[in-house]
Amino acid sequence: MITVHAYAAAAAGAPLESFTYQLAELGQEEIDIAVEYCGLCHSDLSMLDNDWGLTSYPFVPGHEVVGRIVSAGPQVKGVKVGDAVGLGWFSKSCLHCDICLSGRHNLCASAEQTIVGRHGGFADRVRCHWAWAVKLPEALPMAKAGPLFCGGITVFNPLMQHQVPPTARVGVIGLGGLGHMALQFLRRWGCEISVFTSSPSKAEEARQMGAHQVIASNDAAALAAVSCRFDLILNTTNVKLDWNAYLGLLAPGGVLHHVGAVLEPLSIPAFSLISGQKSVTGSPLGSPALVRTMLDFCARHGILPLTEEFPMDQVNQAMERLKSGQARYRIVLKV
Amino acid sequence: MITVHAYAAAAAGAPLESFTYQLAELGQEEIDIAVEYCGLCHSDLSMLDNDWGLTSYPFVPGHEVVGRIVSAGPQVKGVKVGDAVGLGWFSKSCLHCDICLSGRHNLCASAEQTIVGRHGGFADRVRCHWAWAVKLPEALPMAKAGPLFCGGITVFNPLMQHQVPPTARVGVIGLGGLGHMALQFLRRWGCEISVFTSSPSKAEEARQMGAHQVIASNDAAALAAVSCRFDLILNTTNVKLDWNAYLGLLAPGGVLHHVGAVLEPLSIPAFSLISGQKSVTGSPLGSPALVRTMLDFCARHGILPLTEEFPMDQVNQAMERLKSGQARYRIVLKV
Repeated sequence: MITVHAYAAAAAGAPLESFTYQLAELGQEEIDIAVEYCGLCHSDLSMLDNDWGLTSYPFVPGHEVVGRIVSAGPQVKGVKVGDAVGLGWFSKSCLHCDICLSGRHNLCASAEQTIVGRHGGFADRVRCHWAWAVKLPEALPMAKAGPLFCGGITVFNPLMQHQVPPTARVGVIGLGGLGHMALQFLRRWGCEISVFTSSPSKAEEARQMGAHQVIASNDAAALAAVSCRFDLILNTTNVKLDWNAYLGLLAPGGVLHHVGAVLEPLSIPAFSLISGQKSVTGSPLGSPALVRTMLDFCARHGILPLTEEFPMDQVNQAMERLKSGQARYRIVLKV
Repeated sequence: MITVHAYAAAAAGAPLESFTYQLAELGQEEIDIAVEYCGLCHSDLSMLDNDWGLTSYPFVPGHEVVGRIVSAGPQVKGVKVGDAVGLGWFSKSCLHCDICLSGRHNLCASAEQTIVGRHGGFADRVRCHWAWAVKLPEALPMAKAGPLFCGGITVFNPLMQHQVPPTARVGVIGLGGLGHMALQFLRRWGCEISVFTSSPSKAEEARQMGAHQVIASNDAAALAAVSCRFDLILNTTNVKLDWNAYLGLLAPGGVLHHVGAVLEPLSIPAFSLISGQKSVTGSPLGSPALVRTMLDFCARHGILPLTEEFPMDQVNQAMERLKSGQARYRIVLKV
């Protein structure tokens, strides 16, 4: 029996406190990761507060894990003890359904989620299925790479899903943990990049990260000036906006893609889709193969999240920093 | 000056009455069609009632025209006097914008619509730009082909847009003028076809047209039985349904596509898009090139709408028949 030292919330909204639990015997296809770093994602906060009704307590957050494999079951494939790996939102999928066999493991109906009904990466150790522990290229530093496994892949997936060409005009709503990764990908993609933000103070940094223009997300006149312009608008926020106004910013055939889990249903006039052959779409993270593709891309281009590091024992201060909206742009906890 | 003998409504909801108007001099790139047949589409009724706020009166409906070219301006290309052609919802586009030059004339921002701000095909003559008068293959009878130019292309376009493979599982909501064309296309496409209808009396005919199953569109238990099944659901109706329930019927990566102009905004939870990487999309008719492709496909496979024919001077009776919902499945007026 192995004792895991973690941080857990006892109830919705409660502070994180030192917590230990026992790991059962390692499964045939399972690995254990000795956590070195773990990113802090807004979804950890939504789960801690049980915003989605999915949380069980005590709740151990953490789904942007980087560490080294310390145990591997006898049927583990492709990774081995000692490998530096990352683990994101998903920790297991069935591997045998049509969806998994077609390479879309992130859409598997029985996929296990790292912090849903099990304990996550705010801990010295975390367990997962071998398929979801993705090897980190040597060029990517462990201290920075964690957020790629959730925030990064979440915005990388839509660029691949929609086969965004380098000639596309792309808008990104929100410049936070996800948005600032989207900018870095899009800059290397070759696209024209516009950022919609409610924080004008971020404009200069957005330009440094590759934005060609920065638009106030709630300024109707500024939005009207870019009418019918975008091939893709990627919403990385979870706030309610005037979605029909954003549909009006799409060029014919354009796509409004959501990765931010807005709780209030989107109100979408059918006419706004029909007349310009437009789409409203969404996606969850990415498959293991896509994570590998993203990591290669990051290594080739030196793409990394901009992070603020906290020691794991200051996890509650880190959580307050996240809530403040002041983090630039992703928080990483060091074990 | 040429006098056109038409049928027009003097005001919203008024009956159609005999009406004449003068055509101006033929433009360099314009043609006149001597109308032989014209389909009656639900959009004619919506426009007559000014449901969309687009109508000017006197209003001459008719945008599923079949006839022969009787005049052609000196710059007309690709068609000539004597040709049998069809004309649909669009009567002109600019030809020089990015959208037109990329072959998507149906999305041109300055496209002219046959019955918006001008007079349509419930007449002995109708005028249009040469690009939108598409030649009818000899194999397609003029008496039946009219509805292909609106109802047909409206459901053909999404199959091409989404590159629906023959292996796809497709649901069609509504078995009317559009739905019965979708079934005929999908049968030759090789797809598994399910029809959602609120008219159980149509089930047997749906099966004859190729449906593998017929599902009551408002029966929650019947819907639940086909959960996570469909790659594409094509909504051909303009009634409000529980769209989130239909999103639940999509397989991962599935698409809910609207061609029916539901007036009430769609209410779409972002989570329903994100978790299964799903899309809500729409489209308007198709480009001239796509109309040609569709006509070739129809000619090769003997695809034609099922029609009820009325003489043009019984246009008000035909309109009542349309309103009754009893037409099987498209009404065509004979000049």
